[in-house]
Order: sequence, then C-alpha cells, then structure tokens
Amino acid sequence: MRTTITLITLCALLSLGASAQNVDKVENDILDNYARTEINLPQVDGLLPLKADLHVHTLLSDGAVWPTVRIDEAWRDGLDIVAMTDHIEYRPHNGYLKSDHNASYIIAKPTAEKRDILLIRACEMTRAKSEGGHLNMLFINDANPFDTEKMEDAVNEAVRQGAFVTWNHPGWPDNICDFNPINAKWIKEGKIHAVEVFNEKDYYPYATTWCNEHNLAPIAASDVHPAIRDLYKVGVRRPFTIIFAKERTLESVRSAMNARRTLAVFNNQVAGNEELLVKFFKASAIKEMLLNGSYKLTNNSDIEWVTNFGVIKANQTIMVDEKNAQKPIEVYNFYPSHTKSLVVEL
Amino acid sequence: MRTTITLITLCALLSLGASAQNVDKVENDILDNYARTEINLPQVDGLLPLKADLHVHTLLSDGAVWPTVRIDEAWRDGLDIVAMTDHIEYRPHNGYLKSDHNASYIIAKPTAEKRDILLIRACEMTRAKSEGGHLNMLFINDANPFDTEKMEDAVNEAVRQGAFVTWNHPGWPDNICDFNPINAKWIKEGKIHAVEVFNEKDYYPYATTWCNEHNLAPIAASDVHPAIRDLYKVGVRRPFTIIFAKERTLESVRSAMNARRTLAVFNNQVAGNEELLVKFFKASAIKEMLLNGSYKLTNNSDIEWVTNFGVIKANQTIMVDEKNAQKPIEVYNFYPSHTKSLVVEL
Amino acid sequence: MRTTITLITLCALLSLGASAQNVDKVENDILDNYARTEINLPQVDGLLPLKADLHVHTLLSDGAVWPTVRIDEAWRDGLDIVAMTDHIEYRPHNGYLKSDHNASYIIAKPTAEKRDILLIRACEMTRAKSEGGHLNMLFINDANPFDTEKMEDAVNEAVRQGAFVTWNHPGWPDNICDFNPINAKWIKEGKIHAVEVFNEKDYYPYATTWCNEHNLAPIAASDVHPAIRDLYKVGVRRPFTIIFAKERTLESVRSAMNARRTLAVFNNQVAGNEELLVKFFKASAIKEMLLNGSYKLTNNSDIEWVTNFGVIKANQTIMVDEKNAQKPIEVYNFYPSHTKSLVVEL
Amino acid sequence: MRTTITLITLCALLSLGASAQNVDKVENDILDNYARTEINLPQVDGLLPLKADLHVHTLLSDGAVWPTVRIDEAWRDGLDIVAMTDHIEYRPHNGYLKSDHNASYIIAKPTAEKRDILLIRACEMTRAKSEGGHLNMLFINDANPFDTEKMEDAVNEAVRQGAFVTWNHPGWPDNICDFNPINAKWIKEGKIHAVEVFNEKDYYPYATTWCNEHNLAPIAASDVHPAIRDLYKVGVRRPFTIIFAKERTLESVRSAMNARRTLAVFNNQVAGNEELLVKFFKASAIKEMLLNGSYKLTNNSDIEWVTNFGVIKANQTIMVDEKNAQKPIEVYNFYPSHTKSLVVEL
Repeated sequence: MRTTITLITLCALLSLGASAQNVDKVENDILDNYARTEINLPQVDGLLPLKADLHVHTLLSDGAVWPTVRIDEAWRDGLDIVAMTDHIEYRPHNGYLKSDHNASYIIAKPTAEKRDILLIRACEMTRAKSEGGHLNMLFINDANPFDTEKMEDAVNEAVRQGAFVTWNHPGWPDNICDFNPINAKWIKEGKIHAVEVFNEKDYYPYATTWCNEHNLAPIAASDVHPAIRDLYKVGVRRPFTIIFAKERTLESVRSAMNARRTLAVFNNQVAGNEELLVKFFKASAIKEMLLNGSYKLTNNSDIEWVTNFGVIKANQTIMVDEKNAQKPIEVYNFYPSHTKSLVVEL
Repeated sequence: MRTTITLITLCALLSLGASAQNVDKVENDILDNYARTEINLPQVDGLLPLKADLHVHTLLSDGAVWPTVRIDEAWRDGLDIVAMTDHIEYRPHNGYLKSDHNASYIIAKPTAEKRDILLIRACEMTRAKSEGGHLNMLFINDANPFDTEKMEDAVNEAVRQGAFVTWNHPGWPDNICDFNPINAKWIKEGKIHAVEVFNEKDYYPYATTWCNEHNLAPIAASDVHPAIRDLYKVGVRRPFTIIFAKERTLESVRSAMNARRTLAVFNNQVAGNEELLVKFFKASAIKEMLLNGSYKLTNNSDIEWVTNFGVIKANQTIMVDEKNAQKPIEVYNFYPSHTKSLVVEL
Repeated sequence: MRTTITLITLCALLSLGASAQNVDKVENDILDNYARTEINLPQVDGLLPLKADLHVHTLLSDGAVWPTVRIDEAWRDGLDIVAMTDHIEYRPHNGYLKSDHNASYIIAKPTAEKRDILLIRACEMTRAKSEGGHLNMLFINDANPFDTEKMEDAVNEAVRQGAFVTWNHPGWPDNICDFNPINAKWIKEGKIHAVEVFNEKDYYPYATTWCNEHNLAPIAASDVHPAIRDLYKVGVRRPFTIIFAKERTLESVRSAMNARRTLAVFNNQVAGNEELLVKFFKASAIKEMLLNGSYKLTNNSDIEWVTNFGVIKANQTIMVDEKNAQKPIEVYNFYPSHTKSLVVEL
Repeated sequence: MRTTITLITLCALLSLGASAQNVDKVENDILDNYARTEINLPQVDGLLPLKADLHVHTLLSDGAVWPTVRIDEAWRDGLDIVAMTDHIEYRPHNGYLKSDHNASYIIAKPTAEKRDILLIRACEMTRAKSEGGHLNMLFINDANPFDTEKMEDAVNEAVRQGAFVTWNHPGWPDNICDFNPINAKWIKEGKIHAVEVFNEKDYYPYATTWCNEHNLAPIAASDVHPAIRDLYKVGVRRPFTIIFAKERTLESVRSAMNARRTLAVFNNQVAGNEELLVKFFKASAIKEMLLNGSYKLTNNSDIEWVTNFGVIKANQTIMVDEKNAQKPIEVYNFYPSHTKSLVVEL
C-alpha cells in the first residue's frame, strides 16, 4: 500500500519534537556554520588578490577578545592575512594578565596554521599626534624591544628589524588630516611605508593623494577592538587591504607591499593608484554587446559599483542603452586621489 | 534666485567624499549603534516578564571574551539578567591569567551597573554525568569554596550559601536524556531547583515533563563560549528564560525562581507549566471579530507562533475565516510537556 | 526500549525527502505566509493612527497589476486604507481592456471587504504642471464624469461630488517645487485640501511649509505602478499617511482629513504640523530615570529616530548619560517645516 | 584656511533635507535598482548552464500581473528563458479583457527582446488528473488551436506543431504521485517529453525516478500566479530548470531539451540524471590540499550544499580535516533518484 505524506518543514519538526515520546534531544539548526565566505575579486596581471586586515586588537592590549578569535573571524570573513597589532603602551587588563608583547602572536599562531591564515607578527606604537601618532610595525621578529620611551627609538628599532611601517588613521583624534612634520620626515627617510586611507568607519581623502605623491601603500583596516560582528552593522564587510601577490606566502605578501601593490577597500569604496584601479575595474567587468547597439555590463566582483549608469552590486548586470553606449563609465566609489573618482573606457 | 538640487543618498556622499577638496574625514554610517533591542512580551497577572540568560562563559574559564562583553551583549539582546557561570574545574587560559573564581563577576559588575543589567554571582560545576554532570550554582556569595574535590561537597556548599541550583543540558554529551539517580536524589532532597530544557542549540523534551513532575523551573540558556553573534546565525535570538517577577530587582527575581514562575524560550519554542503557558499566550493574542463571523488574530509578542491556522510571526495578523472561527488554536511550538503541544480557546 | 534521535532540521528533511520510498510529495516551507505585518504607532489624544496609501495605480491605467493586488499588498503592509487612483487620461492597456473609470474600484471592492481594508473610490487627473499638474480626487461617487477636456471642469466636478483633493508630487517632473498660480488659486478657493510632501522616492521640503501656511493636510504616498515589492528595496516601508481618526470607518477617516489630522511618513521621516509631531513623538517615547541621573530612552513605535543622541530604531533603547540628561532631544528626521527639525523636551 | 567636516551619512542628508532652504526635492535611495542578479553556475562539458522558468501565468489567464512583468522578473532573477504558459481553459478576467490565447506571448515579446530574455511561445492544458492533468505545450506556433474539447486532440495538436510537452505537478491536487495510465501512454508514445519534479513549493520524489526510467527531462518551475516576490519568502530563489545548451538561442535550448540535458533546481535541491549531477557538482567544487593532509573545499556555485561535512553555502569554504579527507562527499540535497542522494569522490 502506498503512503502519502505531506510535510511542512518547520511545523513538522516542531510538532515532532513536541509530541514524539521517544526523542531524547532535538538539535535545532540555528548555529552559524563557521564556514569561510570567500570575497571574489579578480586577479590583476596574474597576481593573486590576497585580502588582509593589518590592524586588529585583542585582550592582550585593549581589545575584548582572545587572540585566536581574530583568526576565526578572519577565516569566516574570507581574509588571507592578519597582523596582530596590540598596543605597546596601552594594556588595561594587565591586572589580570601575565604576558609580554609577543603573546598575542604566539597565542594566535596555532589557530592561524589550522585555519590557513597568514599571520604577521606586529605591534602598534601609540603616541600623541605631535610625536608621530599611531604606527603599526609589521613583519617584526620581536615586539618587546618596541617598549621604548621615545617614539624615535621605536622607529629606529623598526628599521633594525626590517619592519614595514604603516601610519594609522592620520586624521585622528582631532579630525584634522594634515601631513605633520614628524611623520613627513620619517616618510622622506623611507621609515614609513604606508598610510591608512580607511580606518574602522573613517575615510581620510587626503591620504590617497599622499600615497601618489610619496610612494606610500594605501591601507584599509578595521582597528577592531570588540568582536568584529559587534563592531559593524549586519551585512557590512570590514575594511581590508588587497595585496596583489605572486603567491599566497608571507614572503610574497611582503614583496607586494614593498612594491606598493595594494588597494584599500572599505564599505564598497576602493582607493589606490589610478593605473592599478583601472586594471582592477576592467578585470571585474564583463561587457556583452547586443544587436541593437546597447550592451550588458556585469560586475563580476564582490565590490559594488556606484556609476553614472546607476548602482551595480556584486554579481549584478545592467543594460546600458544605445545612446549611452559610447560614454565612458564613471565609477564614483573608486578613488585615485582625493579630488576625483575613476573614469574607465571598456 | 532659487536653487534646485537633486540628491541620491549614496552617490551624493561618495562623490562628495571623493571630490571635495576640503574634507579631512568622512565618517561612514557602518557601525552598529550598540542600542538595546527590546524583546516585547506581555505581563502575566501583573508580573514583569524579565528575560535572563543564566548560563554564559568568559575567558576566565573556557570562553573567548572578557566578562564585560557578556553584559554588552545582554544589553543589546534585550535581556534583564545575566548569571556569570564560569567553570570551576576547567580554565584553559590559566597560563596567561591571574585570578580566582570570583573574577568574572567582579570584572563584569561595573559594566552591569552602567547598563542596568541585573548580575547574578554564580559558577558552574563540571563533572561526568554519572557524578551529577554540570550544575550551575546561582545567587552565591563566593565561588571559591566550590573548588572541591567531590561534587557532593559542592552541592552542600550550595545549600550553605543558599544557592539556586540548575541541572544543565541533561542529555549531554551522550544524547541520552535520562533522570539519572544522583541528580534524582538531589532533586528529591530539594538541592536542585531547575533544569535546562533548552541549551545552546539543543532541546530536551523529557526535561519539560520533569519540571511538571518534580516541581523544577524550566530554563533556557545559551551556554555561550564565543561572542554571542559568532555562535548563532544572523536573526536567531539566543535561548532565554522568562522570569515573571514583581519588580526588576535580584530579590524579586529570586522569589520568582523559587516560585518556579519561569518559561523557557528557544528558537521561537516555549516550554513550561501549562497554566502559565495558556496565560502567556492569551496575554499575547489580540482577537478582533469581523461582521461576517471571521476574526483577525494578532500576535502581539516577539515570539512567533506555529499554529493550526499557519505561522504568525511577531507583530503579524492573520484572518481566521468563518468556518474555522469556532476551532481552538493549536500552538505547535508551545510545549506544556514532552508529549503534547498547547491548545487554547480564545 | 528507549530510542535516541538527533535531528538537524534541514538535513533531516532533505535526506528524508530524497530517500524515503513512500513519500509522494514534500512541501517546502518557502512561500510567504501572506500575513499582515502591523505597523505599531501610538494613539494621540485617544485617536487611532490609521495608515493610508492614497495614491496607487493598477492595470486599468498604467500600472502592471490587477486592482485586487493593491488590496493584498495593503493587507500585508499593515495599511488600513487605500485609494484606487487610476489616471483618467492615461490608459495604455486599453487595446486589451474593456472598462470604464470605475472598474479598478469595483474590481477591488470584494477583496477589500474580505481583507477588512477601507477602500476609497478615487481617480487621478493628469495634466501639465501649468494646467494644475496631477490631482487626486478622493471620496468620489463616480469617476466617469472626470473625463473632461478642461482641468477646471474636473476640479468643479470634484466640488460637486464633495471630493477631497490632493495635489500630487508638486516638484515633478522638472524638479522645481513652486507654488504655481493655478494650484495656489484652487487652494485659496478651498478646492485643494492636501499636498504630497512625499511621493514614491521623493521629498518636497517646501510642501511641509505650505501645509502650515495654507491649512493643507500633508500626504505621503507610494504612487506605485509595478508590484509594491518590485518598486522598493527589501526592508523599505512604502510612504504612507497617518490619519488620526476616531473610528476605523471611512466617515471617520474623512472627518480626520477634513480636520487636517494627518502626518506624512516616508523612509523613517515624518512631516507635519509641529504640535501633532510633538504629541506623536511623546506618545512613542518611554523615558526611565536611573539612580545615577542618566536615563533610558525607548522608541516604542515602528518609526526610527535620528537624534542628537544617535539613531534609535523601532523597539530600541539607548542610555542618555547624566551630563546630557537635561538636554532637549533633537529629532532630525521629524520635519515641522522645511527649515527645521523637531526639538522635544520629555 | 582648511575646513574640517565630519559627516554621518544618514543624519547629514536628513538634516540637510530638513533645514536647507533652497532644496526643491530630495531623492531618497530607496528604490530597487532593477538590475539583474546573476545565478553563478558552472559550465559542464563546455555547455552553457542556461536558467529557465518554463511555467508562469499572467492576467491573461488566472495570474495577477501583466505579461511584461514576467519578463522583468526573469531579468532580475537572473533567468535566460521564460515560457508564457497561460491556461487555455481558465481565464477568470475575461469579463474585462479582449484577447485570444496568443496575447500573453505577443504582449511580452518586445520586453523580452529589450531584456535579452529568450521567450518560448506556450500554453497550459488544464484538465482533471484522470484526463491527463496539466500539460505545458512549449515551442508552439499558435496557442489558439489548443482550445479543444478533448485533451487527446490537444496532445495531437502538440505533435502537429512540434511542441515539447511537460507533465506538470504530477501529484496535484490529491497528493498522490502515481504514474497514471493516460500520461503513461503518452509518454510511451513519445508525446510527453518532461515532468515537473518541482513545482512552486512542492517536490515529487517519484518524478525523478520516472525521468531515469522513461527518458524524461526533469523540470523545476514556479507556476507563479501573483508577482514572484509576493509568492516566495524573501531570500528564496524560485525553482528553475538548468538547460545545458551550446549557445544562448532558442534553437540550442530546444536541442538541449530534446537531448534531456536538464537539471531541476528548487530551494537548493537539485534533481536529475546521476552522471550529469556528478559532473555538475565537480565543476562547482574547488579542492585545495593542505600540508597536514586536510583540504579546503569551496562551493563555487550559487547552489548551497548539504553534505556529510556540513552545510556549505554559495561561495563558502570549509576545512575537511585529515581523518575525513579520504571519505567521499555525500551531497544530501542532490537527488539522482527518489531513493538516494548523491555521493561524489573529488
């Protein structure tokens, strides 16, 4: 005899759970699956678009979470690279902790290996703006020697350890983003190599222009202190730096940064070198001509475009009609400098 | 002269950000506002429906976050009460920490006061199932004396301190939910006062029936170890216990728990005493008769209903037509015991 | 013998569906439940906050859906009142249709009764801006006599039928929102009674001020042509007018409109009479003083607030600290005129 | 002199809108952008995975929307092909309409050309189950001759016009999915070429097996009557058939259907020929070995997988650890027949 069953997913299980007399446990499918969500971005000139958050904090300085959490978050957020940049000077939980300045790196390392995340040993110098402000020392060997009285000494220690140095949130905390003398001097001397164009929720337009004028790598970083999902609204991707590397290794990442092959990405805005931006945009775009002279334009990347033809989200296609088909595309959310947005001919 | 301006929100700001030459900083509206989202539930018999998570972990035992994070999370999740229940026996971060068993309470207390969250001093005993399994000791004065060799001694310490004791996840870890002899004995002796019907992602149907048979308070708790938003899928509310209290004070909460005035809520399922469930449902329901004999039924609470008339989400209204208007409402996701769901006449 | 089952919701059903040999059909829980989502707004002076969309189109003029769809949409969107305002002059589907100007009302009426939606018979006059632009004739008896050559005749027909007349999108299509002579004349003569401050995606700031100066009722309307869910982004509530009525009847609605007791709501912005706005805000706000001089402020309505203390969404609570506790609340998204936002003392 | 401006997106615009005295109109960014969201699926054997909804209704029979709406919806949903299948026998709006059975195709055609959607001329025969039930006649030249008294005559008309015939929702309306004699006869005679495995919200497991046994093409279709976004919950993709075609032309689509190169997709479940399913899965999967013997598995398609290693959503990666690395992948939501799910070795 045939049996006919009609099921409604939720009701079926709920009533099953409630009434079945021999069920010891009902597991509900409510936990996050802890999978990694990839960020789809195109290669440029055959180089891999690795994604990095080069500025995060943990409980070892003034963050609220254990260092391993930063790796789990990076895995889930589709990042390839994390730099553990706890403050040297500010460690409010010291009354309950026993650790030196390398602890966050050491604690995070095994999880990073398990998660296949590239982990950069680092620290953050934390001074007044007039003394150089906040600088991240990346690719260091030992964070403890950075615990110096004078900022100058820390900068020279960075030189000694061959560090890559980024100037953080240059308009913080006074909302004035000026090219102040002490940082200008270190940039001129080749001791600062990059600047944050985007930090947490903030965009510093001038910093993009500084990258052009002083050969700095543009950086976007979260500077996260709480859990990352506690910081941003649901659906917002954290700021990250695209590093165009030959291979997915720390050596290759360092080479790419030395060559300033980075783009800074933040809330669907991208800042960086104009030539690289154009290549990156073109590598993301699919243009299909139609018989009537119009064309279909597809955004084949996970970064939304705001254009003269309208908004084109990740994975979306618009129709550009015949009378607009000869016009260049203005990409309002791609910034080659603080005075203009990108214009591209496909 | 009149000026006409047409603005498109996002484009306007982005291009403003990109092209304006005198802007030092553009703040993007991407951060979570850290506000509290209220959980709307009805009063029953004039009693306040306070919401509690009575089982959470922090870095002081095997959690991944600092104790203050649990308060911030509770504030944002609309909870009124948190019990800080770090394990006595399992503290994997001890190599980096210096603290006794009261630390998580002491660290969290000032934030709890600032956030107006009622904080219960507590700890979790963590033994094999055959030795009593996991028990939360709530409303204690000092967690350190619970660091005993024998579970029996800890249970007696709970008696000494006047604790309220909950039996946690009774079907864990072997998926067998049986009323084992040692816990049965303590329940009989009045030393265990409540049982988790819901824990993290799991529902233990038998536990609802035990509440009826042995005068236990039904509990729902997250047992969270990572950040709460890392644990659950977006949009899922964590398990919580409704405690029907006269006032929003710890004394009143304790009285309500002593009187077993609790309902356990989890993934839109509610378990507890049948009489209380009926009152709770009726206090949430608005019935409006129409001229043709049909009626409108509104769910005026934040807990979804799965009924014989369909799913009715929070704040939703359905039309019950004339020919069904005399039928009772079967609420498939309200459990007065493990063998049936709730039936209500409005 | 005891049986132990562990279920994961989705997997369980999918594999059940796939492998069970005696299942003829598996219904997936993927359909919208067609329930009504209520919009929670407070009463003011004991008057009901009825919600109306007074401007919608159907296939009978240049819309894309059948008139009954507008009722189903209104039900699901939590509205109480709809006016069916098909164009008199523009009916592009006439080659396939046979109908007069009352058809959309007549077709929609039985569904409106079933859904308990108040349906207003209406039509839209559709002329050049210099001839009076677009006017909605609400509460008419017969739409056919409005098929006149001159707009003046239609306006006088409205007087004859006792219609309530709204001036639609006053800055359309040229983006100039001026108080043009012909409409000014009709307003002065008492033949136009209301003006759309908000229409579809557009806000006309001057119109709010006109309401104050010329005793017009402020209106917000969708002017929808496609299906409503095709028009707006997911999560955006359509524009609607709150009509503060004594009862939920068309007579009471008309009285309220005659008395200009309306507020216009659009994308979480509210425009209208200052006194009414203040009452409405206060009726939505819950202020709870704390011992330290700070207070909790809860938004007990479904309209988000953008204030000097931050964004407070529906159902959210913020903490206003002691040093701000004496300051008035500036509500940036409540507009009593085009030159200022609301300031309230609680 | 330098000017410093700090902007918060929403507040800035709202207060600008409210207070600026020279703004005639503020356009809010709340409309859907009407772009097309692509469905990313892999090619198989160099064939294009075209996406089709072969069963939709319009106002010309018992649908609620105009035929052009079905094209706009298909564009936005990322479909390539639509068949306009209005009922021959059921046209409840005839009192208001003047049209023959080809009208929905003729009305939709210009929009289909503009949107670059392949439009199949079609109709649906609508009889009792015992008379053959519901059959879609696809790729016809003229729908009017199908208005016959006997179903047999319509089936023979399909043969005359060279139609491709699908058997719709075989378990409807009695929830019995049996291979009834009349349809069995037409299948045997080569007059029915496909069967709906999925229709609207329903899955008919036996139909998958019939495809294997009788060389039928598996079909998934929405059978939509209201606007598509009114039918399904937000976030649910409608059922669609993947047709593996050499080119994106109707001729190529027909060839592929003749060759039974289709897969039926519905609520992240995929049914079809086992060999094709395996190829399709493998073409979607990226496996990256790690040094420790574990591997990363990425789902490079827009169809979620439910596997023995957990749920892997579109664009997600999981880690398969060393001890599981030799196990085959069981894909619980891929159905090669009604008795089993897919097992793949990568």
